[in-house]
Amino acid sequence: MNLNDQPRPWQLARRAEAMNPSAIREILKVTERPGILNFAGGLPSPETFPVAAMHAACAAILGEGSSIAKPSLQYAASEGLPELREWVATEMGKQGATVSPDQVLITTGSQQGLDLIAKVLIDAGAPVMVETPTYLGALQAFTPMEPHIESVDSDGEGVLPEALRKQLAAMPERPRFMYLLPNFQNPTGRTMPEARREAVLAVCREFGLPVVEDNPYGELWFDQAPPRPLLARWPEGVIYLGSFSKILAPGLRLGYVIAPSALYPKLLQAKQAADLHTPGFNQRLVAEVIRDGFLDQHVPTIRTRYHAQRDAMVSALTRELGPTGATWTEPKGGMFIWVRLPEGLNAQALLPAAVDAGMAFVPGAPFYARDPDMRTLRLSFVTSTPEQIDRGMAALAQVIREALSR
Amino acid sequence: MNLNDQPRPWQLARRAEAMNPSAIREILKVTERPGILNFAGGLPSPETFPVAAMHAACAAILGEGSSIAKPSLQYAASEGLPELREWVATEMGKQGATVSPDQVLITTGSQQGLDLIAKVLIDAGAPVMVETPTYLGALQAFTPMEPHIESVDSDGEGVLPEALRKQLAAMPERPRFMYLLPNFQNPTGRTMPEARREAVLAVCREFGLPVVEDNPYGELWFDQAPPRPLLARWPEGVIYLGSFSKILAPGLRLGYVIAPSALYPKLLQAKQAADLHTPGFNQRLVAEVIRDGFLDQHVPTIRTRYHAQRDAMVSALTRELGPTGATWTEPKGGMFIWVRLPEGLNAQALLPAAVDAGMAFVPGAPFYARDPDMRTLRLSFVTSTPEQIDRGMAALAQVIREALSR
Repeated sequence: MNLNDQPRPWQLARRAEAMNPSAIREILKVTERPGILNFAGGLPSPETFPVAAMHAACAAILGEGSSIAKPSLQYAASEGLPELREWVATEMGKQGATVSPDQVLITTGSQQGLDLIAKVLIDAGAPVMVETPTYLGALQAFTPMEPHIESVDSDGEGVLPEALRKQLAAMPERPRFMYLLPNFQNPTGRTMPEARREAVLAVCREFGLPVVEDNPYGELWFDQAPPRPLLARWPEGVIYLGSFSKILAPGLRLGYVIAPSALYPKLLQAKQAADLHTPGFNQRLVAEVIRDGFLDQHVPTIRTRYHAQRDAMVSALTRELGPTGATWTEPKGGMFIWVRLPEGLNAQALLPAAVDAGMAFVPGAPFYARDPDMRTLRLSFVTSTPEQIDRGMAALAQVIREALSR
Repeated sequence: MNLNDQPRPWQLARRAEAMNPSAIREILKVTERPGILNFAGGLPSPETFPVAAMHAACAAILGEGSSIAKPSLQYAASEGLPELREWVATEMGKQGATVSPDQVLITTGSQQGLDLIAKVLIDAGAPVMVETPTYLGALQAFTPMEPHIESVDSDGEGVLPEALRKQLAAMPERPRFMYLLPNFQNPTGRTMPEARREAVLAVCREFGLPVVEDNPYGELWFDQAPPRPLLARWPEGVIYLGSFSKILAPGLRLGYVIAPSALYPKLLQAKQAADLHTPGFNQRLVAEVIRDGFLDQHVPTIRTRYHAQRDAMVSALTRELGPTGATWTEPKGGMFIWVRLPEGLNAQALLPAAVDAGMAFVPGAPFYARDPDMRTLRLSFVTSTPEQIDRGMAALAQVIREALSR
């Protein structure tokens, strides 16, 4: 080693050179100006957090005479709390998927599930397929492992089976997996219908392309539950990600991965190296909250709330943006609506004017792995009242009209 | 793509092929037999967990009328709770290190800090230096990024400066960093004295070799606090890792990284991709517990307890193992004693007999990056009573005598 190498002591790994500040994160900072009507966030409504139930659970865990206080504060198994793993397996059974608790790995939010999957399945340069557009956080989780990300043409029902087939047939190397968010997708709000699920999986099976199915929003349906998960249709070919963030509270960072038995040990080892285990206290807290069927009462209240907010936003969009030539999705659940601005406009370029007019959205570009549609933007409808939604959409329409008239 | 590639859908990344079940984990399973005197664990004593203070903090956060209930359950900033970051900066100031809260990243246990550092600094094949022996969890965190790990010759005061110098001079490539655990090291219990800190850092500065300083046990000193941290001596060349696991409770999974400003943004991006942020509820809980100087009262009680347990184990070792020719460290803090068996014995081979005799330890081999000293083993003294320690050491001595007589 040559002494002249010094003095700069730190040398970044190649993957870190490629890491850049999250576009969304920088955008969200701008939108946090007080008083702004903020449709940019990806946060669930804090009004849905069951504070009293959590308080009671904390008291049950930590109160005098509790036998679980110290165990819930001690180091714990990397797999997760047995009660939670069993609960997940049972719930998946209700959705038609046969899952053993041994296949369930409790994670520090489902974001960590994406990180572990990337570590275990992605080599530098290996292809990974995603929807167009796709969840930005997944792109961020995969990127450090340096995949070659391929975006599959998609419509309002998800990826197009024939486009997928053509793309796969032309690829020199089998992709490591395809990442899909079938229910009320972030960012578009779209849902894969029954026929599309079958058609896409038929192509996946044909080519031996495994699927990572991410389902943070599936419980937040408005009129009817979405079709059966992909996991139920192809148990050995699907890794499934679930989360308590949208049905209880994201600040607990509690999610889970369901993996085929062949992969589970590798994910578990990656989990152990990543943070030893998900906080045992949080796992116990959630297990206490949900154990007597609490979610059967609680989740319908979230559905009702978000349903009314979606209705308000669709009405406001129809009234305000309809005349401008913009188009939008009408999601059947979840938290987001995806807007496409009239021809000639650019959502990113429009944002400063929108913020000046008192409202904020997220431009759609960062959600594209490549070739972004610059006319798109994402609106969250769950943290604003109908009245705020009305004012916000009116402000957005005004900004669009001004941009069109220039 | 060739259809004949199917049907096995999952292809592991190269790094995952190299992941193996943790040796320690498999060993710990054996030792969990009920009734066994278990000195194998790395757990703090649950008697030190401040359950009542945590219960009160939960009530303060979630109780009726609390203004922080919903914020503590919502998504939060990836950097961590400002109050905690400020607390860390202030505490480090008391130890002689000038740290800005902007340099503090709250992590999901300090294990996650190791994972983030590995992602940001290690390319496949890049050299990383470690002590001989070193903390197994660090090896597990680094391994997925495929470093070439070099073990530096060490004695009872840590790495040997001259050995380090020779090794560095002979290396074709500058190592990415050296990982050091200067206070009451896991597994040996040894502490780097003042002079050794200076001598090792002089070599590091000379060669431009940055340091990752891991300090989970520093507060657990018995007679006097350990020397100033390495961070205080070379701020731009040291990443520092701290933890609340050993002074409050590990089940909250709360640690922190202090990084030079130049590196912080990359670690932050890796953190965001890994789990978005450390559970906000846990951060708020700890901030509530510690804010009025709670630790000034609490940590001394842990010191007193562990001090008495160390004394009991050293006495028992002197009485029971002394005559066998075994040797051991006498740590000035922390949780572990490192034993070297008499010549000709092998700790791993001895374990089944020890378990049969009703006691368990961890063989030392997994703590070596290479060339393990098979005569070594680790004992934890913090989760057993003095009476259990007496019985356990007597059992170990008996097993050693039997092995020596064969």
